[in-house]
Amino acid sequence: MATRANSVAHPTLVEGLHNRWHPDIPAFATVKPGEVFNIQCVDWTGAQIGNNDNSDDIKNVDLTKIHNLSGPIAVEGAEPGDCLVVDILDVRPFDKMPWGYTGIFELENGGGLFAREFNSRAAKAIWDFKGVYATSRHIPGVRFAGVSHPGLIGTAPSAELLATWNAREGALIAAHADAVPPVAYGPIEKGAYVGQDGIGEEVRRKIYREGARTVPGREHGGNCDIKNLSRGSRCYFPVFIKGANLSVGDLHFSQGDGELSFCGAIEMAGIITFSTSIIKGGVEKFALKQPIFLPSPIDPLYSSKLIFEGISVDYHGDGKQYNMDATVAYKQAALNAIAYLMKIGYTREQAYLLLSAAPVESHVGAVVDSPNACVTLALPLGIFEHDILPKEEGLTKLDFGQCAIRSDGVV
Amino acid sequence: MATRANSVAHPTLVEGLHNRWHPDIPAFATVKPGEVFNIQCVDWTGAQIGNNDNSDDIKNVDLTKIHNLSGPIAVEGAEPGDCLVVDILDVRPFDKMPWGYTGIFELENGGGLFAREFNSRAAKAIWDFKGVYATSRHIPGVRFAGVSHPGLIGTAPSAELLATWNAREGALIAAHADAVPPVAYGPIEKGAYVGQDGIGEEVRRKIYREGARTVPGREHGGNCDIKNLSRGSRCYFPVFIKGANLSVGDLHFSQGDGELSFCGAIEMAGIITFSTSIIKGGVEKFALKQPIFLPSPIDPLYSSKLIFEGISVDYHGDGKQYNMDATVAYKQAALNAIAYLMKIGYTREQAYLLLSAAPVESHVGAVVDSPNACVTLALPLGIFEHDILPKEEGLTKLDFGQCAIRSDGVV
Amino acid sequence: MATRANSVAHPTLVEGLHNRWHPDIPAFATVKPGEVFNIQCVDWTGAQIGNNDNSDDIKNVDLTKIHNLSGPIAVEGAEPGDCLVVDILDVRPFDKMPWGYTGIFELENGGGLFAREFNSRAAKAIWDFKGVYATSRHIPGVRFAGVSHPGLIGTAPSAELLATWNAREGALIAAHADAVPPVAYGPIEKGAYVGQDGIGEEVRRKIYREGARTVPGREHGGNCDIKNLSRGSRCYFPVFIKGANLSVGDLHFSQGDGELSFCGAIEMAGIITFSTSIIKGGVEKFALKQPIFLPSPIDPLYSSKLIFEGISVDYHGDGKQYNMDATVAYKQAALNAIAYLMKIGYTREQAYLLLSAAPVESHVGAVVDSPNACVTLALPLGIFEHDILPKEEGLTKLDFGQCAIRSDGVV
Amino acid sequence: MATRANSVAHPTLVEGLHNRWHPDIPAFATVKPGEVFNIQCVDWTGAQIGNNDNSDDIKNVDLTKIHNLSGPIAVEGAEPGDCLVVDILDVRPFDKMPWGYTGIFELENGGGLFAREFNSRAAKAIWDFKGVYATSRHIPGVRFAGVSHPGLIGTAPSAELLATWNAREGALIAAHADAVPPVAYGPIEKGAYVGQDGIGEEVRRKIYREGARTVPGREHGGNCDIKNLSRGSRCYFPVFIKGANLSVGDLHFSQGDGELSFCGAIEMAGIITFSTSIIKGGVEKFALKQPIFLPSPIDPLYSSKLIFEGISVDYHGDGKQYNMDATVAYKQAALNAIAYLMKIGYTREQAYLLLSAAPVESHVGAVVDSPNACVTLALPLGIFEHDILPKEEGLTKLDFGQCAIRSDGVV
Repeated sequence: MATRANSVAHPTLVEGLHNRWHPDIPAFATVKPGEVFNIQCVDWTGAQIGNNDNSDDIKNVDLTKIHNLSGPIAVEGAEPGDCLVVDILDVRPFDKMPWGYTGIFELENGGGLFAREFNSRAAKAIWDFKGVYATSRHIPGVRFAGVSHPGLIGTAPSAELLATWNAREGALIAAHADAVPPVAYGPIEKGAYVGQDGIGEEVRRKIYREGARTVPGREHGGNCDIKNLSRGSRCYFPVFIKGANLSVGDLHFSQGDGELSFCGAIEMAGIITFSTSIIKGGVEKFALKQPIFLPSPIDPLYSSKLIFEGISVDYHGDGKQYNMDATVAYKQAALNAIAYLMKIGYTREQAYLLLSAAPVESHVGAVVDSPNACVTLALPLGIFEHDILPKEEGLTKLDFGQCAIRSDGVV
Repeated sequence: MATRANSVAHPTLVEGLHNRWHPDIPAFATVKPGEVFNIQCVDWTGAQIGNNDNSDDIKNVDLTKIHNLSGPIAVEGAEPGDCLVVDILDVRPFDKMPWGYTGIFELENGGGLFAREFNSRAAKAIWDFKGVYATSRHIPGVRFAGVSHPGLIGTAPSAELLATWNAREGALIAAHADAVPPVAYGPIEKGAYVGQDGIGEEVRRKIYREGARTVPGREHGGNCDIKNLSRGSRCYFPVFIKGANLSVGDLHFSQGDGELSFCGAIEMAGIITFSTSIIKGGVEKFALKQPIFLPSPIDPLYSSKLIFEGISVDYHGDGKQYNMDATVAYKQAALNAIAYLMKIGYTREQAYLLLSAAPVESHVGAVVDSPNACVTLALPLGIFEHDILPKEEGLTKLDFGQCAIRSDGVV
Repeated sequence: MATRANSVAHPTLVEGLHNRWHPDIPAFATVKPGEVFNIQCVDWTGAQIGNNDNSDDIKNVDLTKIHNLSGPIAVEGAEPGDCLVVDILDVRPFDKMPWGYTGIFELENGGGLFAREFNSRAAKAIWDFKGVYATSRHIPGVRFAGVSHPGLIGTAPSAELLATWNAREGALIAAHADAVPPVAYGPIEKGAYVGQDGIGEEVRRKIYREGARTVPGREHGGNCDIKNLSRGSRCYFPVFIKGANLSVGDLHFSQGDGELSFCGAIEMAGIITFSTSIIKGGVEKFALKQPIFLPSPIDPLYSSKLIFEGISVDYHGDGKQYNMDATVAYKQAALNAIAYLMKIGYTREQAYLLLSAAPVESHVGAVVDSPNACVTLALPLGIFEHDILPKEEGLTKLDFGQCAIRSDGVV
Repeated sequence: MATRANSVAHPTLVEGLHNRWHPDIPAFATVKPGEVFNIQCVDWTGAQIGNNDNSDDIKNVDLTKIHNLSGPIAVEGAEPGDCLVVDILDVRPFDKMPWGYTGIFELENGGGLFAREFNSRAAKAIWDFKGVYATSRHIPGVRFAGVSHPGLIGTAPSAELLATWNAREGALIAAHADAVPPVAYGPIEKGAYVGQDGIGEEVRRKIYREGARTVPGREHGGNCDIKNLSRGSRCYFPVFIKGANLSVGDLHFSQGDGELSFCGAIEMAGIITFSTSIIKGGVEKFALKQPIFLPSPIDPLYSSKLIFEGISVDYHGDGKQYNMDATVAYKQAALNAIAYLMKIGYTREQAYLLLSAAPVESHVGAVVDSPNACVTLALPLGIFEHDILPKEEGLTKLDFGQCAIRSDGVV
């Protein structure tokens, strides 16, 4: 008979927040290989964004505090040079909080891929979670299944690796000292946080002073924002320090390839379920410079797609020819898709947010046909309530209103 | 009863070769909307490469002659501003020629994505076509279904558009005058060819002098090398001149996203089957800056994949940090995959060719996490005869020999 | 800012159990169209089966009590002739109870598709839920993503429809009075249950006396055990009485097409999330004799499969030729698969349970080639830890132990 | 350089027609394992049906002549008990004959699944092949990619297996002596044919007298009409006589699961490409009672579907309850789909033909919920030019005319 005694929930290892990468951050908890466990995560901003209808919270967001990571979790037996296998068994919002958000940040506070082109002002969309689906009152007419994943997951760097990061990123920052938004974020004590009491002051200062910022993905994983690192996937991480010290955060209910608007995923707070195992010497065995992974069999499948092409010419702007730059090509493909979505009635902001949040696929077409890299962006047709295919009679333009904007009305 | 009278083959509009884009190249044939027709195509080099076991023909290839395009085909009723809908109904090799090739070009003659990193010397793999599959005696251990497509397909540019191309690419060339291989190829009379007799000498000279080279993809389509523009897809092209003047060539039996090695697809000669229709004013109706398309329902489906990540750091080389460059990130992901394939026994050249030719998927992960763009490259597991998954005991290294190399043995 | 005030969980309409279909069972709760709500469900036996290592509970299960359904839920505005659209938004186990079971029932108590052929004795497998995956200590070597769904969901019948059911099934029972197990189960007061207090005794007796048993699927849906009516699907039900009165139960974490062993799914207790809408006059609009549905975009995708064929000849037994009987053909395909699985080391009972529980696909091949119907059964290769493909050297037979059997050792 | 010398087409082993299964039919050609070769096939009726607009040829078809098989092909080294691995590398129509047909046969001449229910009169649809797609002037509004396959493929039976077939089918025929159409077809000399000259008269008479008819699929494969045994699949056949003696025919451009109307596939003449290999003792190694196969990675993928349910109750007719009969359930699901298609404007005959020919998927839902088997039939939405989803406003009924019917106008 089914009883309480023979039914035992997986343990939840309550969050230990931190927002820097450093080998000296102590493990918050330790697990054995094979154990199934849950981690609770706040959203990446630490609950700065609310479920409401203006974007003032986006405008004023304090980005010195991000990302709020849960962990580190040490895995018994993991040593440098090993491979830490992480099964991402589930990712879901808290039952008590069935919503998330996608934001466009101000040019001067966060930016985004089109921050300069659009001279971005704060905007957002709130998404309601209805089981496996998301819908938004701010972007009517679409519903899609989430490819839920952690935007940020990684093992702790060794001191040596950390030094490498700080050196190479520092050189880039130095070379672009005046960029708005900045090209990268170096270590800074302001805002640094490690939510554990038992750390000596000296160590804490060292972590704050040297700790790598969490925005970019790096060799250990980190903020890669790969939508297919989703629930059901299996990921192989290189281990750099004893225990591996896995941290995770920035949960996404869904995201399109590219995460266009920077805060482009559907950001949420929630629970992630893991189990781990260790492959001794895996870094050498698999030539592991960076994580590799096996995708999930339950990633959303929308076989009908409308695909946009982009090349590395900024013909939406000054028409400049770039040399084989896939990022420029991706941007052009996205701009082409935005232009199409505006034909069916979405505002530029809604389209920008939708391409960021929906399970859009972006493929590298070719990066060898000098000087034009070619990138495609595929819009799944099954997410739209209406038929948006190109028709002889043209496209039907509907009124979808506008997403949440600033209370002063500036867009 | 089935008779010859009630069975009529689709007409073949025999090839009219040319290798430049210019509005003044006359249409070779004219079709009506709705008509199904075949076009025969030579391979992109014009049969310079043979089915043999050394790569001397790759080493010595004459690239001034490429690409050999079939067409142009005018479509009745098409006018500037219209959208030309092209159904790519089939793409297949000639029955009498069931093979193709993938090549690595010399650094100084053609190059490729890793030409500089690898100091590339000529190499190639011959692929045997067995119905829907390709196998290679030069890369044993794999078999995959082709995602057959034209590497190059496009409408003719207007004089104005052509001028734009030549101006913007000329500026880039001027800025990188000493690059090896060159960053782009400007108009040049040497090698220019239009295989039609009835063209006046003055027009011919004008075409040769101004005609855009065929290497890059552009607003009209062109050499986009998008593998999913495959048989069964429907493509929407902007029309720039009366008749649209569609040209096609560079048929590929298969290709991976990115076409890594430049001559990275399985290049072949063969037959492409089209039908067309016109949507009046489609450029405006669909905000059509570049082609858009609907993919094919019969693209190969390999759901099990091993996925490699790459970021915009050149740590295989000098470790330099690039600023959000998805091309660098794609290269790193590819290098990580090559390192893995070498662990299971392929040579670097075999791995480079295989990633170029097989139905590899490359997604833009995220391009907003400054300074690291993140790109993934997914290797379909179902194409391998052996199980190549990461295992606790490590990977089994087999002996797959080597691909076809130069007769002087230089690799 | 995210606060408790702007975060509201979906309401849970606590279960109202009943185990008969009858129009007079009052609605337990009423919802408005568009509302998202949860229903808690016990497992189909009402917790008779435990998480342990023998099958005595299966042997002794009391089947007069099944199925335990939650509901009915009335939907405001639904009237006979309407179509009730039900979005199955999520289906998941209770967090506190991350396990389920698959059982083989005794020939004389429950039976199953091979009850007679195998002279079935009780056996079972306990499955552990690890996020989206299930594994079993009783069937080692496999892991698969769940295609989670309600085995049983339907609207309440009208008095007229109920009478039709009882008449036609009564005629079948009468014609096979001595069958073991019985060919069908008619209304019977013993075990009947409606868990609501405010029902008058006369009505209650009427329900118990006339109420249709829950085993078969019927025009209203019911116990169809369609695995693809899964989380993410949208189902269109005919409405027979005012309010529609939707009931649901028999949640499955996973199931193979056919549900081979009768208790063949991974049976679980848990939570199902719905929203509903009404299409007035939908029965006539859509010629709705039975439910129709749109499948989910997140059903597990395992593209590599090994497929077994079966024809309507019982050559595993007496070799008799049946006339176009797809059920016989399905059984043969399943027997062929069981024989194959036994070659790789599973016992007959393990194989029988595995084919029942895993996301096996069974297609009707052809039912027109007299006298042999042909049915296929596809085993997804991605669920096995080992490579089970046919190999020149034959199959490797491993030792997978045995599933849970009776404490007296009888198999 | 590509030359004629280094380009060699695969050989075509010209057809050797026969229309019976018998171990004494000599091999027409012999191949070595690994060889790639083509087989030409006439359509199953031997070109009795024409590309025209009435169905008189269907009405008058001579079914004593079917199926016209090409072969047998002996494979060097194959012996009884071995497994013959057949790679179906390609299946395509003759270039000179880009069309096929789907037919509804008269009740008294061929029948079909609904022959009695519909009192079937001859009807047909001609399909035009446009590369990978089929369209029909007789069923406008749809276009789909073909899942091209041989309806009939098998190894030759041993004398013993042949005797088993004739005995068990003879018993069934005897038990249903008066059935219209007959429940099965026994050996009969009339119409028997083996197109090889060098066979002695005595042997020929023996073959004609004993040879099994080709309609049903059996343990050797045969007329299984499994749509997924398509180009790109790999099939494992049991070998019963020396050489295996593979025969093939009844090529289908496309077919739905079930092949509803008997001549329900898109029947065509064309070319099939094979390679073979042998696994010694494979019957024992793989417990091979019947063929098993690996499906193709290029089977058409239409992820959006509308799914109809059916149960084993004949309520469209007499309302009788059947006992767990999946064939009845399949028929109900098909009738439900036909009723839906008639709501959007197709005639009953068009709908019947369309469900037969299009890549419809039919799954066995459950066959354990006594007394109702449940079968589903999934209509791919992507094959329709119009949106056919259930909508609040109901379905739009268009005028699609009628398919080809008898010249006397009888439907």
